[in-house]
Amino acid sequence: MSDQEVSNKRVALKNYVTGFPKESDLQIITTDTIRLRVPEGTKDAVLVKNLYLSCDPYMRERMSASDGGFPPFELGKPLIGYGVAKILDSTHPNYKKGDFAWGFTGWEEYSLIVSPQILFKIEHTDVPLSYYTGILGMPGMTAYAGFYEICTPKKGEYVYISAASGAVGQIVGQFAKLSGCYVVGSAGSKEKVDLLKNTFGFDEAFNYKEEPDLTAALKRCFPEGIDIYFENVGGKMLDAVLANMRIRGRIAACGMISQYNLEKREGVHDLTHIVFKEIRMQGFLAATYYHLYPKFLEMALPYLKQGKIVYVEDIAEGLESGPSSLLSIFTGKNVGKKLVVVAPE
Amino acid sequence: MSDQEVSNKRVALKNYVTGFPKESDLQIITTDTIRLRVPEGTKDAVLVKNLYLSCDPYMRERMSASDGGFPPFELGKPLIGYGVAKILDSTHPNYKKGDFAWGFTGWEEYSLIVSPQILFKIEHTDVPLSYYTGILGMPGMTAYAGFYEICTPKKGEYVYISAASGAVGQIVGQFAKLSGCYVVGSAGSKEKVDLLKNTFGFDEAFNYKEEPDLTAALKRCFPEGIDIYFENVGGKMLDAVLANMRIRGRIAACGMISQYNLEKREGVHDLTHIVFKEIRMQGFLAATYYHLYPKFLEMALPYLKQGKIVYVEDIAEGLESGPSSLLSIFTGKNVGKKLVVVAPE
Repeated sequence: MSDQEVSNKRVALKNYVTGFPKESDLQIITTDTIRLRVPEGTKDAVLVKNLYLSCDPYMRERMSASDGGFPPFELGKPLIGYGVAKILDSTHPNYKKGDFAWGFTGWEEYSLIVSPQILFKIEHTDVPLSYYTGILGMPGMTAYAGFYEICTPKKGEYVYISAASGAVGQIVGQFAKLSGCYVVGSAGSKEKVDLLKNTFGFDEAFNYKEEPDLTAALKRCFPEGIDIYFENVGGKMLDAVLANMRIRGRIAACGMISQYNLEKREGVHDLTHIVFKEIRMQGFLAATYYHLYPKFLEMALPYLKQGKIVYVEDIAEGLESGPSSLLSIFTGKNVGKKLVVVAPE
Repeated sequence: MSDQEVSNKRVALKNYVTGFPKESDLQIITTDTIRLRVPEGTKDAVLVKNLYLSCDPYMRERMSASDGGFPPFELGKPLIGYGVAKILDSTHPNYKKGDFAWGFTGWEEYSLIVSPQILFKIEHTDVPLSYYTGILGMPGMTAYAGFYEICTPKKGEYVYISAASGAVGQIVGQFAKLSGCYVVGSAGSKEKVDLLKNTFGFDEAFNYKEEPDLTAALKRCFPEGIDIYFENVGGKMLDAVLANMRIRGRIAACGMISQYNLEKREGVHDLTHIVFKEIRMQGFLAATYYHLYPKFLEMALPYLKQGKIVYVEDIAEGLESGPSSLLSIFTGKNVGKKLVVVAPE
């Protein structure tokens, strides 16, 4: 079986993108084959069957030719992203056949991962494995590091979260409630606003698309001002937040999804608030905090099992849905964490 | 003598300002008188003779009607700002006649300061007293807190300072050199650039007015990128810096003088660098760090006395020069720390 060559469909970038990506910028390639074992003599490698692939906003950066940030995807090669996979063969001391893992893998049915730098063995399988693309994976660590490490919350503080029903926002909001904060979120549809209020327990929520004046909307939600802003969108929203921040407020700059597809990014005009209100704005990437992953799991698993935190996923079926799924997160069509099921567990 | 009523000239704001302030927005009022003692029954007060008044960029904020930040100056009343004064009469336990102090005072010849919240007794008079408007006063504390507390410098790091020959910038640059950093500054004239290189010992300096492309200028000065940016100007310069920052760089947001006089502030477009390069940008005000003042003096005084740090002042004579002096810092006409001598010591 493991010597067998099987077909290995993949999702690849056809060309580098400027502006808004289209489905035709991506392609499904069905002509590949792969042998289901680690090649002879290849050390510290695993051959995996990909089960779930994660659609993450930062991936847009890798679809551009180069802006000096993340390295661009290689054209024609499978996209690289977070996923959950089953180990089929291993020469890596930490993994054996039958193990599950999450981390960087390819957007294809089977991947050979050599010297994996970001791959975590899944030790707890009594929760949906797909959660390791979300609340128990990179988005969970993003929420954890951003909220607890960067924002240093105190009970009673006022917390605002943009893109609040997304993969990360919904977790931050629930963490903030568990920390005794007052929490407001914004999202782009009535359905999402209802989720924030009724499923995730936010104190207040609004549909930013229906607010002609974002500064006024935030003033209404936060008459006392904002202590903590979990920044997922950037642009105009950031300006509105800065005007409403309190002295020594903190901004965890997690993402700026409103800006990734613009050829010329919006200007943020009122940065002088950062000076005069002594605001700390800090960008961060989850990977920098992965040493805290065991501590995070220790906190998050019981919350999940006791139902104190819930997680909403938006699951697409089949690798073929990869291109449309990835693009959906830039138009906000997804409701909750967007992921693709490649194969049943 | 102390019962005597004397004339008390003052500099006052005539009207609130939008856009660029003009000398005619300010006025000298010569008709006041004052009795040179603390009024009977007024506790914890000092009556001072003002010697030096400090021209500081943040004062522009107080010249606007209100933007929710600093409280506006009262029209017709003396401007409030940092200064050095001699105590003529005191009911405050910390001060006696003949003492010198620095802190918040009025732009007038004599001031009654009741319950002073920011006033420091000057214990060391073997340095020019005017330095207490600069390197030994608020600007010195700004440089100290911003560089050491916010930027957490490490030997060998790459440091960039805008408005580098100003009251704060010249100190930060010298601190950075003493910390073993590579230091580049920018300023707006050849004379200032020469000061940076020859007097303050910067490794490199450039005239930003002669650079058609600020991003390219910084790339030239920092082929390896910038670890620490001491932000004094904002706007376009900040965008150019963000493009050149290194991973986990730090920005001390001390001021954004290029923006204070604009009716519509410039947009900063590339804030996504903050996310992907995990940059920390932090606003701060010196006053938040005044508990560190004794520690700061312990460091700064020996450096000054040994000539390891020098300080360049731009001194105007007489209260009448107040309006033009204050305005000069917004056009960059000053060379070094701008201050006004009201009276000889």
